[in-house]
Amino acid sequence: MTPAALSLDGQESTSGEARYTTLEVGDFAKLDLGRTARTGLPEVVWGPGKTPGQIAKIMLALRDRQSAVMATRVDPEVYEKIRLIEPAIEYDSFARVCTLQGSADAPPTPVVHGTLAVLTAGTADLAVAEEATITARLMGVEDVRLIADVGVAGLQRLLSRLDEIREADVVMVVAGMDGALPSVCAGLIDAPVIAVPTSVGYGAAMGGLSPLMATLNSCATGVTVVNIDNGFGATMSAIKMLRAAERLAQKMV
Amino acid sequence: MTPAALSLDGQESTSGEARYTTLEVGDFAKLDLGRTARTGLPEVVWGPGKTPGQIAKIMLALRDRQSAVMATRVDPEVYEKIRLIEPAIEYDSFARVCTLQGSADAPPTPVVHGTLAVLTAGTADLAVAEEATITARLMGVEDVRLIADVGVAGLQRLLSRLDEIREADVVMVVAGMDGALPSVCAGLIDAPVIAVPTSVGYGAAMGGLSPLMATLNSCATGVTVVNIDNGFGATMSAIKMLRAAERLAQKMV
Amino acid sequence: MTPAALSLDGQESTSGEARYTTLEVGDFAKLDLGRTARTGLPEVVWGPGKTPGQIAKIMLALRDRQSAVMATRVDPEVYEKIRLIEPAIEYDSFARVCTLQGSADAPPTPVVHGTLAVLTAGTADLAVAEEATITARLMGVEDVRLIADVGVAGLQRLLSRLDEIREADVVMVVAGMDGALPSVCAGLIDAPVIAVPTSVGYGAAMGGLSPLMATLNSCATGVTVVNIDNGFGATMSAIKMLRAAERLAQKMV
Amino acid sequence: MTPAALSLDGQESTSGEARYTTLEVGDFAKLDLGRTARTGLPEVVWGPGKTPGQIAKIMLALRDRQSAVMATRVDPEVYEKIRLIEPAIEYDSFARVCTLQGSADAPPTPVVHGTLAVLTAGTADLAVAEEATITARLMGVEDVRLIADVGVAGLQRLLSRLDEIREADVVMVVAGMDGALPSVCAGLIDAPVIAVPTSVGYGAAMGGLSPLMATLNSCATGVTVVNIDNGFGATMSAIKMLRAAERLAQKMV
Amino acid sequence: MTPAALSLDGQESTSGEARYTTLEVGDFAKLDLGRTARTGLPEVVWGPGKTPGQIAKIMLALRDRQSAVMATRVDPEVYEKIRLIEPAIEYDSFARVCTLQGSADAPPTPVVHGTLAVLTAGTADLAVAEEATITARLMGVEDVRLIADVGVAGLQRLLSRLDEIREADVVMVVAGMDGALPSVCAGLIDAPVIAVPTSVGYGAAMGGLSPLMATLNSCATGVTVVNIDNGFGATMSAIKMLRAAERLAQKMV
Amino acid sequence: MTPAALSLDGQESTSGEARYTTLEVGDFAKLDLGRTARTGLPEVVWGPGKTPGQIAKIMLALRDRQSAVMATRVDPEVYEKIRLIEPAIEYDSFARVCTLQGSADAPPTPVVHGTLAVLTAGTADLAVAEEATITARLMGVEDVRLIADVGVAGLQRLLSRLDEIREADVVMVVAGMDGALPSVCAGLIDAPVIAVPTSVGYGAAMGGLSPLMATLNSCATGVTVVNIDNGFGATMSAIKMLRAAERLAQKMV
Amino acid sequence: MTPAALSLDGQESTSGEARYTTLEVGDFAKLDLGRTARTGLPEVVWGPGKTPGQIAKIMLALRDRQSAVMATRVDPEVYEKIRLIEPAIEYDSFARVCTLQGSADAPPTPVVHGTLAVLTAGTADLAVAEEATITARLMGVEDVRLIADVGVAGLQRLLSRLDEIREADVVMVVAGMDGALPSVCAGLIDAPVIAVPTSVGYGAAMGGLSPLMATLNSCATGVTVVNIDNGFGATMSAIKMLRAAERLAQKMV
Amino acid sequence: MTPAALSLDGQESTSGEARYTTLEVGDFAKLDLGRTARTGLPEVVWGPGKTPGQIAKIMLALRDRQSAVMATRVDPEVYEKIRLIEPAIEYDSFARVCTLQGSADAPPTPVVHGTLAVLTAGTADLAVAEEATITARLMGVEDVRLIADVGVAGLQRLLSRLDEIREADVVMVVAGMDGALPSVCAGLIDAPVIAVPTSVGYGAAMGGLSPLMATLNSCATGVTVVNIDNGFGATMSAIKMLRAAERLAQKMV
Repeated sequence: MTPAALSLDGQESTSGEARYTTLEVGDFAKLDLGRTARTGLPEVVWGPGKTPGQIAKIMLALRDRQSAVMATRVDPEVYEKIRLIEPAIEYDSFARVCTLQGSADAPPTPVVHGTLAVLTAGTADLAVAEEATITARLMGVEDVRLIADVGVAGLQRLLSRLDEIREADVVMVVAGMDGALPSVCAGLIDAPVIAVPTSVGYGAAMGGLSPLMATLNSCATGVTVVNIDNGFGATMSAIKMLRAAERLAQKMV
Repeated sequence: MTPAALSLDGQESTSGEARYTTLEVGDFAKLDLGRTARTGLPEVVWGPGKTPGQIAKIMLALRDRQSAVMATRVDPEVYEKIRLIEPAIEYDSFARVCTLQGSADAPPTPVVHGTLAVLTAGTADLAVAEEATITARLMGVEDVRLIADVGVAGLQRLLSRLDEIREADVVMVVAGMDGALPSVCAGLIDAPVIAVPTSVGYGAAMGGLSPLMATLNSCATGVTVVNIDNGFGATMSAIKMLRAAERLAQKMV
Repeated sequence: MTPAALSLDGQESTSGEARYTTLEVGDFAKLDLGRTARTGLPEVVWGPGKTPGQIAKIMLALRDRQSAVMATRVDPEVYEKIRLIEPAIEYDSFARVCTLQGSADAPPTPVVHGTLAVLTAGTADLAVAEEATITARLMGVEDVRLIADVGVAGLQRLLSRLDEIREADVVMVVAGMDGALPSVCAGLIDAPVIAVPTSVGYGAAMGGLSPLMATLNSCATGVTVVNIDNGFGATMSAIKMLRAAERLAQKMV
Repeated sequence: MTPAALSLDGQESTSGEARYTTLEVGDFAKLDLGRTARTGLPEVVWGPGKTPGQIAKIMLALRDRQSAVMATRVDPEVYEKIRLIEPAIEYDSFARVCTLQGSADAPPTPVVHGTLAVLTAGTADLAVAEEATITARLMGVEDVRLIADVGVAGLQRLLSRLDEIREADVVMVVAGMDGALPSVCAGLIDAPVIAVPTSVGYGAAMGGLSPLMATLNSCATGVTVVNIDNGFGATMSAIKMLRAAERLAQKMV
Repeated sequence: MTPAALSLDGQESTSGEARYTTLEVGDFAKLDLGRTARTGLPEVVWGPGKTPGQIAKIMLALRDRQSAVMATRVDPEVYEKIRLIEPAIEYDSFARVCTLQGSADAPPTPVVHGTLAVLTAGTADLAVAEEATITARLMGVEDVRLIADVGVAGLQRLLSRLDEIREADVVMVVAGMDGALPSVCAGLIDAPVIAVPTSVGYGAAMGGLSPLMATLNSCATGVTVVNIDNGFGATMSAIKMLRAAERLAQKMV
Repeated sequence: MTPAALSLDGQESTSGEARYTTLEVGDFAKLDLGRTARTGLPEVVWGPGKTPGQIAKIMLALRDRQSAVMATRVDPEVYEKIRLIEPAIEYDSFARVCTLQGSADAPPTPVVHGTLAVLTAGTADLAVAEEATITARLMGVEDVRLIADVGVAGLQRLLSRLDEIREADVVMVVAGMDGALPSVCAGLIDAPVIAVPTSVGYGAAMGGLSPLMATLNSCATGVTVVNIDNGFGATMSAIKMLRAAERLAQKMV
Repeated sequence: MTPAALSLDGQESTSGEARYTTLEVGDFAKLDLGRTARTGLPEVVWGPGKTPGQIAKIMLALRDRQSAVMATRVDPEVYEKIRLIEPAIEYDSFARVCTLQGSADAPPTPVVHGTLAVLTAGTADLAVAEEATITARLMGVEDVRLIADVGVAGLQRLLSRLDEIREADVVMVVAGMDGALPSVCAGLIDAPVIAVPTSVGYGAAMGGLSPLMATLNSCATGVTVVNIDNGFGATMSAIKMLRAAERLAQKMV
Repeated sequence: MTPAALSLDGQESTSGEARYTTLEVGDFAKLDLGRTARTGLPEVVWGPGKTPGQIAKIMLALRDRQSAVMATRVDPEVYEKIRLIEPAIEYDSFARVCTLQGSADAPPTPVVHGTLAVLTAGTADLAVAEEATITARLMGVEDVRLIADVGVAGLQRLLSRLDEIREADVVMVVAGMDGALPSVCAGLIDAPVIAVPTSVGYGAAMGGLSPLMATLNSCATGVTVVNIDNGFGATMSAIKMLRAAERLAQKMV
C-alpha cells in the first residue's frame, strides 16, 4: 500500500526510501507521508471545502506520524464540529488554525535554526501574521519575531526597529492596501524578503490584488511574493530558506 | 457666434461675462474660450487622434487669445508635419509637448504664486515629470522644482531632500512599478500630494495599473491620484490648488 | 520609548521635535503621535480587521493627545461591542464612523479656514458624503456645505446651485454609476475638484470601478481622484489643500 | 443553390420568399442575400482578417444585388491592394471605409425617413463619427447631422446646440475618456440615445473600457450602448429604430 | 423654488416651460419634475442605498405629479419597512419593484403605441424580464408580450414563435450565460433589438460580464446593449424608441 | 403544440421525427423534449434562479418522458421546499443535485459503453467530482471511476494509479488552485482529457480563474476545458465522446 | 541517453517500452520521443520564442522518427530564415505552419478513422481553421471537412449544412466576436463540440476573451473549449477523441 | 555630497558607515552606492525608459565602485547607440543585458557560495533563464546550472534530472503557459523554489498572467513568485537566500 518509490509506469522500485509513502484516509484523501523526506515540510491540512469529519480524520491519521499536525483556514463554525469529534484538536480563532499534538511515537519536529522576522504594515494585517507565526513555531523555527504596525505612513516606526530586523535571516512582510512596506524594507536589509499581500483594504484594493501587484513590481531587489493572505505558505517557504542555509552552512563549516 | 452665457434652452443670456465664449475652428473643433474665465485654466490641445493640420490650426486660433498655447502627447512624426505647417510651433521631444508663443495681443499669463515640487521615483519616470514641469512653467507657476530619482529602494535619497520638499505648497510624486513613493512621501510632509502613476514597469505592472491601484490605496492620508502618465493633468490640478490657496490667502491677509 | 527623531540607523537624533513620537498600544498597535506635527493631520483609526477591543483601546489612548479622535468603517455590530467597553465613544450608523471627545488636556483642534463643498450625484451616495462631512467638521473645517442629489440626469439641479458651489475653496464630488458629475462640475468652476467614486451601481459598475475609471479619465482638467467610497480620505486631502493656503498666506504677508 | 426558406432539417421549404437566399463566393464566404428581406439591413463586409482579394471579390459579388456595398475597418495598405484589383472601389481613409456603387440592375436603396444626429465629445472622436455618417448616408438616411466637439468640459457647447439636437429622431453620442456626454445628453432630450464609447484616451481608459462601462452605467434613462468604436453598428441600430417608425406609421394610418 | 429654465449662471430664464422644475424632499433628494417634459420619461426611484423612509417619502412626493410612481431593486426586507410607512405602496417580490398609484390629480400616463416583445433565453432570466414588463405596463406601453425560455440550445423554441416576434416594433432579449440569443434573434427580424445580459450563470460568467461582452460583440447588426440585469433601463430605452417612432409616424402620416 | 420539425419561417414540416418536440410548463418553461433525439443528451434542469415550485413542476413534467431526471446546483434550503412539493425527488447535498426516477412508461436510459475516469487534485475538489459521477451514472455510463486526491504536490499518488487511469476511454481531471494536474495527466495518457477547473483556492485564485486560465494554456496537447466547477457539463461532453465511439463502431462493422 | 522508463528517483527501469525516450538537441531542447507511445500524439514544435535555427534543428532531428513534423505559429520573416537553413521545410503563410516530410525510415503516420468537421462563423476565422485542417491532415485524419462562414447572423447558412455536419464524429467550431455558433451548433447535433474562440473582433472582444467566456458558458451541453485561436490544440484533442472512439469501437465490435 | 547616514530630518549622522552614500549622475540619476552595504546587492541599471546616453553614463559612473556593472532589458537598437558612446560595454542580445567590467580599483565581487539551479519548462523560456544565469554569474554565484526544456508535458525529462536538481541550494523555475512546473518541482525537492512566470503563450495566457496566477496558487508548499519574465529579480532574491546561509553558517560555527 505504501511503495517506497514509484516509476512512471507504476511498478514499485526497491530503492528503499520513505520518499513516496502514502496513506489512504477513507475514500477522500491520500496522504503524502513521504513529503517530509522529499521536501523537508510535512503534510498540512488545507481546511476549505473539507467537511469537519474529513478534517478530523486526516489530523488523527497524521498524529502518529508527525509531531506537528495542523489545518489552516478553518472557520469557527467548522471547528465547533471538529471539537465534538476530537476534543484534543485545538483552535486559534484569530488565525483560524487547528493544531493537534503528535502522539508520543511520532518523530519529533527537528529544530529549524535561524531567525524569522514577521512584520506587519498595520494592525489589520495581524491575523495573517499570526497564521505565519503559529506555523513557524509549530514547525520548529528557533526564533520567531513579530513586529507589528510598522507601515510606511509613519516611517519612524520601521526605522526604530531596523537593528532588530537586520538580525533576522529571513524577513516576511505582511501588508495590504498599497503594499509599500516590502519595498521599503527590502531596500534597507540584506535578508531575503517574502512579501505577503493581504486583503486588507476596500474598493480599488480589489481583495488584495493591489498589494499583490505592487509587491510583484517592487522597485527594490530581493523580494519574492506569495498568494494574498497566505501567511502559512510564506512561512513554509521561509523554512525552506532557513533549512537551505543550514545545509549550506554544514557544507561550509 | 460667441454668446456670453447660455441657458439650458439655448437662448443667450445677457449676463455679459466671457465665461461661455466659444470659437469654431473648421468643422472639427469648437474651442472653449471661456474656460479661463470659468476655471482659471486655459484650453489645451490633446494631441492623440487629431491630424497635424487640426493641431496646428487650433494652436494658431488660440494664439491671439492665450499667451500660453500647448498641445500634449504629440508624437515626433506628427510634429514633423506640424512644423511644416507652422514653424513657430516648438516641440519638446522628451515630454512630447508642442508649445506656441501667444501673440503680442494675447492677455499675459498671470503668475501662479507658490512652490510646486515634482518628485520622480526613478529616471524612467522623467518624461512624465517633464510634461508636468513644462506645463507648470508655461502656466505661470512661480517656483517649480524637479527632484529626480528618489525612489524608496534607497530611502536616503528621499530623506536627504526632505527639507527642500517640505518647502513646497503642493507636491507631485511621479512613480511607476510599486507606486510606493507617494505613500512614503505623504507620511512625511504636510502639503497635499498628487500621485502620478506611470506606465514604467512590465508584466504585472500592467501598463501602470499596479501603481495606480497602489496609490489609490495609499496607507498615508493626503494623497489624490490622476490617470497613468498624466503629468499634464496633475499640474493643472496643482495649479487649481495653488490658486485656491492664493484666493483664500487674500481673504485671510 | 518615544524618540523625537530617528535616523535610518535607528539612533535617536537630538533635533528635538515631536515629529517622530510613537506610542505602543498593547502589542498590536504603534500609534504615530508625530503625524500631526509632520503632516498636519492626526492619527485616525481604520476600523476593518480590528477587534472592538483594539479599536476602543486605541481611541482611548489617543484621547489625551488629540481633541479629535475618530474611527472609520466600523460596522454596527462592532460598535455594539465598542460601546460596552467605552460608552463615551459615539457612533454615526449611516456613515459608520465612531468619534470620541478628546480629554480636557488634549490640544485643541486648530481651525481649518476656508469652504469645502461636498456634492453628491444621487441620494444613494449620501453615506459616503456623510463620512466626508463628519470628518471635515471633526478636523475643524470652518465651513462645510453638503449639496445633495445634483447628478447630471437633471442638469438644472447642478446649475441652480452653481453660485454656491463657486464660493467653495475645494469641491468634493461624490458619484457612482457613470461618474459623470465630477467632469461636468470641474468644467464650470475654478476650485480644485476631488472626485470620490462610489460603489453605488450594479453589474458593469463593478463595485465602483466604472466611476473610478471614468473620473481618472475626466475630459475636464483639475480633477484628482481617491479610492472608491473614500469620503474620509478625500476630506483629509481637502484639508491639506486648505492648509496650504494658510501657509501661502503667511508667506505672502 | 439559393433556397428560399430552410427548415431545421435542411429540407427546402416552398414558402417562397427571398429571406434565406445565400451566395457562395469562392470557398471562403457564404453571402447572406436574404438579410435585407429579413432584417431590413443589407450584408456589409467586415474587413479585418480578410485578404484584399477576398474583400474585393465579396464587394463585386454584392454589387449586382445591393445598391449600397461597403466594407468597414479596412486599413490603408489593404485598400492599396484592393484598388489594384478593382479601381471602382472607393475609400475614406479617415473612417477606413470602402464603398462601391451598386450596378444599374441592383435594387435602389430605399429612403430611411427621419433625422439622425451624431454628436462627438471631442475632435479625436471624429473618425468613429465619420464611419457612422458614411454608413447612414449610404444606407439612405434622409437627414444626417454631425455635431462635433461638444464634450462636457465646456458645457455651453452642448447647450447652444440643444434645439438642433432635439429635432433628431435618434441621437448617437460618440465619446471616449469619461464617457460623460451620453448621460448629460440623454437627460435633456426625448429621443433614444445610442452611446458609442471610443478608444480615445490612455492609461486607465483601457482602450475604451472606461467609457464603455460609464455609458452602461448611465445615470440617465434612455441610453443603450454598442461596442467600442463601433460607429457602423450604432448606425445600423439607429436605422432599425427609424424604420420601426415607418412600420408603426403604416399601422396607424 | 422650481424655476422653469436655468441658465449656466443660475439666473432663472423666463422661457416658461416645466422642463426644469425640481422638488426638494427633505435634505436628501432633489426630484427632477421636469424630466417628463424634457425626456418623455418620468422620475423613477432607484432603490439601493436609500433607506425605507427615503423611498417612501420620495414616492409619496411624486404621487401627485405622476400617475406612475415606481421604485426598482427594492429588497423584500426593505419593502417590509416601506409598507409600514405607507401601505398603499405595492410590491412585486419576484421583480423587486415597488409601485404606487398616482393620486387623482396626477396627469394620466399617456399611451405608448406599438408592441414590445420581451424574450428570455431561460427560465432563470424571468425576474429581469418581469422588471421590464412591469415597467412597460406602468409606463403605458400598449402591447407587451413576454416570450419565455426560447434559448438557442433548443432552437425550435425560438423559430416557432418567430411570426409573433416579427410583429413587435421593438424586441428586448434577456439572456445570461453565453448571451447568444440576441445575435440569433437580430439576424431574423427587422425590429431593433435591445440586449439585456443577465447575471444568470456562474464561474466564467463572471456575474454577467460574459453575456455583456458577447452581446456587445454581436455578429448580427441591429443590437444595442444595456447594463447587466437592467430590465428597467432596457424598457425605458424601448419606450423612447416607440415614442420616437410615433412622432416620426405622425410627421409621415 | 409539439411540431416535429420547424422551418425558419415557423411552418411545421412533415418530416416526422421527434427532434423538435417541446412541452410548455406553466408560462415559465418550454421543455426541449427533442433534445435526446437531436443531441443524445436529455433535458436537465439548471437550478439557480428557479423557484422550488418551478423546479418540481419541470421535473415532474419530465418524468414520463425520461428515465433520468435531474436538477443541478440546488441549494439545501431550496431542496427543503422541493421535497414538500414532491417527496419522490431525492437530493445529494454534497453535490447539490436533485434526482427523480422516471415513471414506468418512460423510455429506459440507454447504456453508454466505455470507461470514464474522474480524477481530483485534492479532497476539496470532491463535490464537483461527485456532481460529475452522479450525472454519469444517471446517464447510463457503464464504468465510472473516481480517483481522488492525486494532485501534483505528491506526484507518486498519480503515478501509482496510472495503469488504472490508462484503461479509461475519457479522463476528466477536476482541479483548482494552480490547475497543474490536467497538464501532467494529459502528458502521460492517450485518452482525451477534459479539465474541470474549480473554485477551490483563495486570493489570486480569483474564484477559479487561475486554474481555468492554466488549463486553457496547458503545455500538454489533448486537453479541452469546461466552465469553473462544471462537473455536470464535463460529464455531458464525456458522454458525447463515448457515444461517438458507438457510432464509429457501427460504421466500422 | 534515452532510458525507456524512469522512476521518480531517476533510476532507469527495465520495463522496456519507448514511452520515455528523449533526445537532446543542442543545449536548448529535450525532445520527448516517447510522446506518441504515451499519448498517441507526436512532438510538435511551438514556434514563438524560438530562433529560426532552433526550429530548423528540432524539425530535422524529428524527421527520422516521425513521418509528420510540424511547427506552429511561425511568422513569415522567421520562415524566411528557416528556409535558408533547410529548403525542404515547407510553409503555409495563411495558417503560419511549417511542415517537413519525415524521412523514408520514419514510421508511417497511422490513419485516424472518422470524420472531423471544422466550422467557422466568419471568413475572418479561416486562418485558425486552416491551422486545424492542416494539422488534422498531417496527423492522418481520414475525413476532414471545412464548412466556412456559417455564423448565426444568417442562420440558414448553418441549417442548410446540417445533414453534412451531422455525419461528423467530432465537430470543431471556430468563432470570434460573440462566440454564439458553438452553442447553436451543439444544440442541433450529437457529436462532441470543441469550441475554438478566436481573436476576431475589437474593443470589448478583448482579444478573444469575449468568445472564450461565451463558449465556456454555453447554454448547450456537450461543448468543451480550448485557448483562443488554438486551432492546432483543438485538432489534437479531436484526434484523441477519434482514437478513443476507435479503441472503444474495436472492443465493441 | 555623500553623507554616511541620514536621519528622517535630513541631518547627517556620524555613525560612519557607507550605507547611505549616493552619487548624482547629471540631473537624472541619484545612484545608491550604499546599496551593497545595506542589502548585499549592488545598484543595477533598469534599461526601459532611459536614453542610451543615460544608460552609458550611469554604467561608467558605477564602474569605479562596483566590479559588476549591468543594465537589464536593453533593446538591440538602444545598445547600438550605447556601444558608440562606450565600446567597452558588452551586450547579450538574447537576454538583452549590457555588462561592463569594473575598473581595476573597484572592489572585487565577493563569491556567493552555493548552487543555483535554473530550470525552464520550454525552449521558449530560455531568454528569461539566460537573464538569470548572466546575472548570477556576474554577481559571483559559485555554481550556476541551467537545466532547459523539462516541462511537465514529458515528465520523464524532469525526473531524469532530479538528482542533479536536488543538489541545488536554491531552485529557480522559469515557466510560461500553465505554470505547472514550479508546483511539480517543489513537491519533489527540499530547496526553496522561486517561480518565474513568463510571457510565453498567447490568448488566455494574457501576457503571463496565467502562469503568474498559477504559481501564486501552487498546491505545493515552498514556492515564492516574482514578476513575469523577471529572471534578474529572481536571481537577486536567490542570492539573498544564499548569502543568508553564509551568515547563518558563521553564527553556527
